[in-house]
Amino acid sequence: MLDFVNKAKWDAWNSLGSLSKDEAKKSYVELVNGLILSEAPAKDTASLSTGQKYDTLQVITEDNITKIFLNRPEKKNAITLQMYKEIGLALDEAAKDDNTVITVLTGHGDYFCSGNDLNNFTNIPPEGKEKMASDSAVILEAFVSKFIDFPKPLIAVINGPAVGISVTILGLFDIVYATDRATFHTPFSQLGQSPEGCSSYTFPRVMGLSKAVEVLLFNKLLTAHEACKLGLVTEVFPDATFQKEVWGRLRSYGELPKNSLVFSKQLIRDTEKEKLHAVNVQECERLKERWLSDDCMNAIISFFQKKAKL
Amino acid sequence: MLDFVNKAKWDAWNSLGSLSKDEAKKSYVELVNGLILSEAPAKDTASLSTGQKYDTLQVITEDNITKIFLNRPEKKNAITLQMYKEIGLALDEAAKDDNTVITVLTGHGDYFCSGNDLNNFTNIPPEGKEKMASDSAVILEAFVSKFIDFPKPLIAVINGPAVGISVTILGLFDIVYATDRATFHTPFSQLGQSPEGCSSYTFPRVMGLSKAVEVLLFNKLLTAHEACKLGLVTEVFPDATFQKEVWGRLRSYGELPKNSLVFSKQLIRDTEKEKLHAVNVQECERLKERWLSDDCMNAIISFFQKKAKL
Amino acid sequence: MLDFVNKAKWDAWNSLGSLSKDEAKKSYVELVNGLILSEAPAKDTASLSTGQKYDTLQVITEDNITKIFLNRPEKKNAITLQMYKEIGLALDEAAKDDNTVITVLTGHGDYFCSGNDLNNFTNIPPEGKEKMASDSAVILEAFVSKFIDFPKPLIAVINGPAVGISVTILGLFDIVYATDRATFHTPFSQLGQSPEGCSSYTFPRVMGLSKAVEVLLFNKLLTAHEACKLGLVTEVFPDATFQKEVWGRLRSYGELPKNSLVFSKQLIRDTEKEKLHAVNVQECERLKERWLSDDCMNAIISFFQKKAKL
Repeated sequence: MLDFVNKAKWDAWNSLGSLSKDEAKKSYVELVNGLILSEAPAKDTASLSTGQKYDTLQVITEDNITKIFLNRPEKKNAITLQMYKEIGLALDEAAKDDNTVITVLTGHGDYFCSGNDLNNFTNIPPEGKEKMASDSAVILEAFVSKFIDFPKPLIAVINGPAVGISVTILGLFDIVYATDRATFHTPFSQLGQSPEGCSSYTFPRVMGLSKAVEVLLFNKLLTAHEACKLGLVTEVFPDATFQKEVWGRLRSYGELPKNSLVFSKQLIRDTEKEKLHAVNVQECERLKERWLSDDCMNAIISFFQKKAKL
Repeated sequence: MLDFVNKAKWDAWNSLGSLSKDEAKKSYVELVNGLILSEAPAKDTASLSTGQKYDTLQVITEDNITKIFLNRPEKKNAITLQMYKEIGLALDEAAKDDNTVITVLTGHGDYFCSGNDLNNFTNIPPEGKEKMASDSAVILEAFVSKFIDFPKPLIAVINGPAVGISVTILGLFDIVYATDRATFHTPFSQLGQSPEGCSSYTFPRVMGLSKAVEVLLFNKLLTAHEACKLGLVTEVFPDATFQKEVWGRLRSYGELPKNSLVFSKQLIRDTEKEKLHAVNVQECERLKERWLSDDCMNAIISFFQKKAKL
Repeated sequence: MLDFVNKAKWDAWNSLGSLSKDEAKKSYVELVNGLILSEAPAKDTASLSTGQKYDTLQVITEDNITKIFLNRPEKKNAITLQMYKEIGLALDEAAKDDNTVITVLTGHGDYFCSGNDLNNFTNIPPEGKEKMASDSAVILEAFVSKFIDFPKPLIAVINGPAVGISVTILGLFDIVYATDRATFHTPFSQLGQSPEGCSSYTFPRVMGLSKAVEVLLFNKLLTAHEACKLGLVTEVFPDATFQKEVWGRLRSYGELPKNSLVFSKQLIRDTEKEKLHAVNVQECERLKERWLSDDCMNAIISFFQKKAKL
């Protein structure tokens, strides 16, 4: 089924070769819109299990730890609009749950997360792409706000490659543990876009301005060890022992006095909270403009054309 | 004498085994209060030398350098209430002294400093522990303020392990030289407490947020080389040549034009001074709450009980 | 010609040996004033080529890259007053030029830049040294402002040693690539001066406060690899392949969507722009005082005397 859809997409893009640029753009919008709709029914059904509160996540609380698993391994945990909302919901619950001392975000499968699901951008509503862009900006801003405001220690367990928004929000985590198999990639300018997740603020502070520019403007991919040297990752573990070592350590963190952790995090973070919210608003405002720009449209067309030529 | 007191303390703690938690807490307060009083006369007498201005410090000014030595080596230079005040006094004098270009804080003996003397917390005044907590917060805030406001280059010469407050204030120094024998430990959450010395602000800026969280929330101990890699320590020296190399270098610093150093430090620091004072106030406010919390009380009881079981 | 002038300068300084300090200072001012005037006609003639817009720079725009070459290799690219203005002009043009995606500052010859041309300080106008100091401060502030406000990605290609102002402005660049032959030196306090180029703000943020203090207060020279480890340099290349590797990479950067780069830089930088301008003003204000101070005068006299004794 998926292969069929992809084949159709590629054929269609190949056929754009003879169109003018303006025609190509128009066709593109109609095309992806149509294709996505036909793809939609297949979305997320794999992870729909009876009695489970979340469709796109698995959430478990034990040993004072709330574990939020991104649970679309067959899509490399790409984040759909529903998933943005469910993650926000799961964070709200972990914040309120008295049994939760430590909260962890991680992924099922080989990937931590392949970033924003591109289908989010192509499923254009009847009101047009302006509506799509402003809706997406609202969802993104609300999503990032949950991380800014999360009151308890928040830990990322990076079980594999991380892309886009799943990288940029890492500056809002308190600790980031990664397998040595992980990579970190934010190819924004290549796609005519711009940074989000408060990374325009947190990354220069984490890794120094010029390294942040290479990553955020010039699409530099980081290995786990490079990301650790730059401070984005707290510690790297060999993949073979990653899960065992990390969860063992987290269990010991979960035994510490909750209030001391919460208040210590407050002292460290509250001084920047207002600033981070302002940055989040600015980044989303900019992305709204970017998503409708020729840069972005051309970059996505060129991306699909390159893919089609393979 | 000391052994006798310790023995009494441990026996007493051992006997708590059969008490309820509430009873244990009550007994604890009475107990340490009583024990501390009986210990008091022994305090600091060793370092009381005739004609010396300071009881807990040795202060020497030569070669344009004021050297402040923590001078309770038999207590691993743990900081008593008197010592907090004397350090503040010595900094005031170094700031005013025209002969002082560079000011150095270091320790006599094997330790740089084992942190806050726990006896400060147990010597509960007749007005009760609320009074103790608020008095301690006032003393701590005044102490940290002296470091924030110190106008000349301030250098830490870390001659051995450093714990607690002697680690957290390092972000307020201009340079930190350490022997490779030094370690750095801030086990706040283990003790139900929270960071001070402006570390909730300076540590994330010095070492990146996630490394700061490991240190300040999760009690991670750093070796000298780790602390240097994280930027908390400026340079590490082999213990065998530490004193010789460091003091040689400091003498050359002492020959530089004083005003250029003072004004350069002003340019670098003044932009953050107001912020640092605000952080200091918040941290002390939080500690006042922490010191009276069940978390802190339970952690200290459990700490003594573990000790007693050894 | 140049040798003759230098010889005269050294002889003159040698002869100061028998003067009192006050007499020496007075003689110094008259002396350097006179010498500079006689040196002036020789200034910059080598780089005056017909039809070229800039006397002290070579500026080329190709492959979407504007390359600004410091072009006084025979003076190690020391920055004259004219050169400060021309660099500002070249940045203004690159900002406006629609063909410019990336802008690069680099040097012709062995040096990146040996810093402020000391002749700028010795050519005292009839109105006296107060006028010289305040004029210089105005020029410096305007120069640094151009870097703060530059809207496109700004990249330093450090082709050799860098000194003083050519080091301190690096915190305002987006990326700094360096040959392994490069060194970085800011001997301000040795000369009785203080930091500029916003380094009192950017360096602590780039390299951590204590490393910044070693560099800015205590005249520590950094190798290219040390500067890279501290975050001041983004990446170091072997000198043999430096030019080839760097320009190849920059060409690929020049192909990215311009607006995404401009807007991403805006997100990263705008949050600090106001602060940086305030820092620039403070640093220039302080230097105006420093340039007229005994510290500075004595340091320069002692510098020339040491040179004379060689």
